[in-house]
Amino acid sequence: MTGLKQKLLERVDPDLEAIESALVENLTPQLELVKQTAGHLIFSGGKRLRPLLIVLSARICGHESSFVARLASTFEFLHTATLLHDDVIDAASMRRGKAVAHSIYGTPVTVLVGDFLLARALSTVAETRNPKIIEIVASMTEEMSQGEIHQLMKKGDIHITEDEYMEIIRCKTGILIQGACRTGAIFAGASQEAETALTEYGRHLGMVFQIADDILDYTAENNQFGKTVGTDLKEGKLTLPLIYAMNRARGADRRIMESVVANEDLTESDFKSLLALLEKYGGLDYAEKTAAGHLEKAKKQLEIFEPSSTRDILVTLADYALHRSS
Amino acid sequence: MTGLKQKLLERVDPDLEAIESALVENLTPQLELVKQTAGHLIFSGGKRLRPLLIVLSARICGHESSFVARLASTFEFLHTATLLHDDVIDAASMRRGKAVAHSIYGTPVTVLVGDFLLARALSTVAETRNPKIIEIVASMTEEMSQGEIHQLMKKGDIHITEDEYMEIIRCKTGILIQGACRTGAIFAGASQEAETALTEYGRHLGMVFQIADDILDYTAENNQFGKTVGTDLKEGKLTLPLIYAMNRARGADRRIMESVVANEDLTESDFKSLLALLEKYGGLDYAEKTAAGHLEKAKKQLEIFEPSSTRDILVTLADYALHRSS
Repeated sequence: MTGLKQKLLERVDPDLEAIESALVENLTPQLELVKQTAGHLIFSGGKRLRPLLIVLSARICGHESSFVARLASTFEFLHTATLLHDDVIDAASMRRGKAVAHSIYGTPVTVLVGDFLLARALSTVAETRNPKIIEIVASMTEEMSQGEIHQLMKKGDIHITEDEYMEIIRCKTGILIQGACRTGAIFAGASQEAETALTEYGRHLGMVFQIADDILDYTAENNQFGKTVGTDLKEGKLTLPLIYAMNRARGADRRIMESVVANEDLTESDFKSLLALLEKYGGLDYAEKTAAGHLEKAKKQLEIFEPSSTRDILVTLADYALHRSS
Repeated sequence: MTGLKQKLLERVDPDLEAIESALVENLTPQLELVKQTAGHLIFSGGKRLRPLLIVLSARICGHESSFVARLASTFEFLHTATLLHDDVIDAASMRRGKAVAHSIYGTPVTVLVGDFLLARALSTVAETRNPKIIEIVASMTEEMSQGEIHQLMKKGDIHITEDEYMEIIRCKTGILIQGACRTGAIFAGASQEAETALTEYGRHLGMVFQIADDILDYTAENNQFGKTVGTDLKEGKLTLPLIYAMNRARGADRRIMESVVANEDLTESDFKSLLALLEKYGGLDYAEKTAAGHLEKAKKQLEIFEPSSTRDILVTLADYALHRSS
């Protein structure tokens, strides 16, 4: 897994550098406090997956320009805005191994800085003067917020179905990743065929990425309870491994699972007994297989493009989305 | 004053009806909870000042269409998004005589519905496919959020200057009102001269409106402490009447004012003693004169237009902005 990450990083290093510069440049508000609060999360080691996808999607369609990194940075802003508001909503304490922004800068500032980043992103996207891109980004933002609300409504609901879970992750993760690939293609003036292929690649990649995230929340190697594992459950988020296993468990096992989910003061030992049940009923396997199915579909989309180093990177990136350790 | 309101309402009644329909139609999310939370504030008797200004500005530039009400509704959405987040941030309890949304639907939903309205507004504005309008609305949203952050930073700060106050109200109120007038003009394909006149009209009108609001927070007729009056001070917001008076007060008077402002548990009797000092040092008079100055400038801008009933309405609306009772 580390090999995959290393391979990927070496090949996208100049792109990541351009994205970092664009993020700094594009964070030019008049107020120092905005810069600090936004910067606290933006420069805390995010993977830059979304901006990278714009750059790579544009490149595979034959486009290179300095503006593309600027456009790409807006997707990191949108992503960050969502995370800032999410952490407030979930009353989270840690994000990427650091204290969350609202614990340092307070909830009011954090909510407003989230608003600012959302607006700044849309404002930068408007600079493209490309109505199609603007419409995509605006309606994407709309769907994302509905996805968040849907997730909130389903918090702690043991009757959540697999379809509802899929719809929630499509909105909260899929749309932005899919939107990044599609935006890159449109910005490059791609053919309809290439635009569709990249959109579909992004759609499946988004599913892979989120399902892998949800699996990692049970199985991460550095498994610190409440930090690297168990955070979803602590926040009342029922994800695929659990949904699948609960649907299959009966009798005492089912009752144990229900009581663990309902328990607001989840302990590490509860979590471990739940994990054993997830394994017993094949929840983790099922989630992994589902993600692997999307991974194959994502890679398949890339076949319409000529072999190139950019295509290789997009393939590696999809593999990495599933086979990563954090 | 009631006469002015009556006169205005009679003349814009069909426009208000079209705006109400557009608000209902444009609030078509997939989730009932979004509709309820957003609707709680949207349909709670707002003045519809911002959407009305778009319709009237477009009309005075010769444009009528059914889309204009839809476009206008987005400005009410932006305004509502701001209010929802503001009330969370200020931990407010009442708005327009009703319990605030977050006390009914919870803070998480309220924050997310605010995000949704912001995104929905930008998404609808994107439908115009007019890059200039899209850029204006996006950068307007950005400036507004910075204004809110600026206001938050100045909370309870007795050293806030008149200039800082003016900059805060320009961002938090002026920009949206000015943006509404400008957007109406651009959407109508107005000449540069007409666009500038309406933009300037909006800029001054915004100042009149906010300064009048700040005066009313001290002097409203139905002066229920903590409901119709005193709410700004309770939230640590120092506004023009107080800033002016504090700058002029010395000795014991100044100390009384400082202690009232610093007191987090402001009582009605504190508030009354402060009010007497505002009168003694001419704070309320000064604010009224400042607003009246902007009112004259706003009306002056309209002189470039031929006399018409629309022009009369815009004049009346400006008068009403200052001479209203709530």
